[in-house]
Amino acid sequence: PGKKVLIVYAHQEPKSFNGSLLKIAVEELTKQGCSVTVSDLYAMQFEPRATRNDIVGPLHNSEAFNYGVETWEAYKRGHLSKDLVEEQKKVQEADLLIFQFPLFWFNMPAILKGWVDRVLVQGFAYDLSKIYDGGLLQDKLSLFSFTTGGSKEKYAIRGDIRYLLWPMQHGIMHFCGVRVLEPHICYAPENVSEEKRKEMLAAWTQRLKTLWKEEPIDCSPEWYFK
Amino acid sequence: PGKKVLIVYAHQEPKSFNGSLLKIAVEELTKQGCSVTVSDLYAMQFEPRATRNDIVGPLHNSEAFNYGVETWEAYKRGHLSKDLVEEQKKVQEADLLIFQFPLFWFNMPAILKGWVDRVLVQGFAYDLSKIYDGGLLQDKLSLFSFTTGGSKEKYAIRGDIRYLLWPMQHGIMHFCGVRVLEPHICYAPENVSEEKRKEMLAAWTQRLKTLWKEEPIDCSPEWYFK
Repeated sequence: PGKKVLIVYAHQEPKSFNGSLLKIAVEELTKQGCSVTVSDLYAMQFEPRATRNDIVGPLHNSEAFNYGVETWEAYKRGHLSKDLVEEQKKVQEADLLIFQFPLFWFNMPAILKGWVDRVLVQGFAYDLSKIYDGGLLQDKLSLFSFTTGGSKEKYAIRGDIRYLLWPMQHGIMHFCGVRVLEPHICYAPENVSEEKRKEMLAAWTQRLKTLWKEEPIDCSPEWYFK
Repeated sequence: PGKKVLIVYAHQEPKSFNGSLLKIAVEELTKQGCSVTVSDLYAMQFEPRATRNDIVGPLHNSEAFNYGVETWEAYKRGHLSKDLVEEQKKVQEADLLIFQFPLFWFNMPAILKGWVDRVLVQGFAYDLSKIYDGGLLQDKLSLFSFTTGGSKEKYAIRGDIRYLLWPMQHGIMHFCGVRVLEPHICYAPENVSEEKRKEMLAAWTQRLKTLWKEEPIDCSPEWYFK
């Protein structure tokens, strides 16, 4: 109760299974007394491209554009574009970040990757030696909740689903100091029965009820690769 | 000689180190008699968002938008948007795909992920049971060439750089049947001496000279995780 949650949501269709998972999270967490904010990326027409437009006013070095350096400088001077400042404010206030999306090519959809590329700038999310457990977004939790196209068995044939979580959970969240809860994976909702889909939705509601009692995973190579 | 190469390039600044790597690849491969095409994503203002705009005309199911289903249907009927058709034509004609980009968050930049999400649609790059060694883009080679922000040592502290290649090389290229050459990684070009940078550029030229004699990697979990 009183906790703040930011859900970064990347699906085009409210009637989708991802849309249902989002709705459940908003309802259940609100019921618990949490304050829930949603960044609905497609509805916002969120810009995924990292360009010069992210810096308001003159560049630090207009001779050769370096996105990392320019956004770092712009952050320090308060010269980042308005959409980025708004997202950073949401992140700053959140106790928990939930990413809700359909897996595209063993990864998040480009619009969500663009949110990561553009919002988590140096100075805000990490800094020179402030990475991993020393990252700037400590005391926050994160949870990757996603759907897949293929079945659980298909992912198990060649490797393990955890392999693809490494760049997202470790490379992004852990890098910024954010602790990571177990991912929530709904396998192939489009290819199962209506009953099975309802079970999956109920399982998500159920998990959310005790979410705040969960321990973060140990985000080390062992968790991912045994 | 006579081979066709598509370079999908994702950097904003021609004067960048990535820009130099691109220039070298175009020059060296052209000198060899290859036909080289470049998709310069930022210059093209390539759209990374997967939306309804990718389908020309009415939807297959306008009740609930499903990007995967709609683009599959649109591909079969020749109803994909013009920018996607053009990129697919380039892919179709290529013997080798080179992806040139700066690593952003253990992964490709969003604009390049958007190229993958939108161009490699079902029916074109893979199909129901046509995946991995049975994928639809067989007889092609691919090569991920990228720069990092951190040093080689930094990536080695926590895991191995190969861990983050899994979703890209295996999850995208191998999934479509494309064979994968050893990645080409330039570590932290911004943080090394001018002399070291020149060495790195020379090494890329050198590698390209014998590229066509290389054997693809064995794109199985063992290569990535030992």
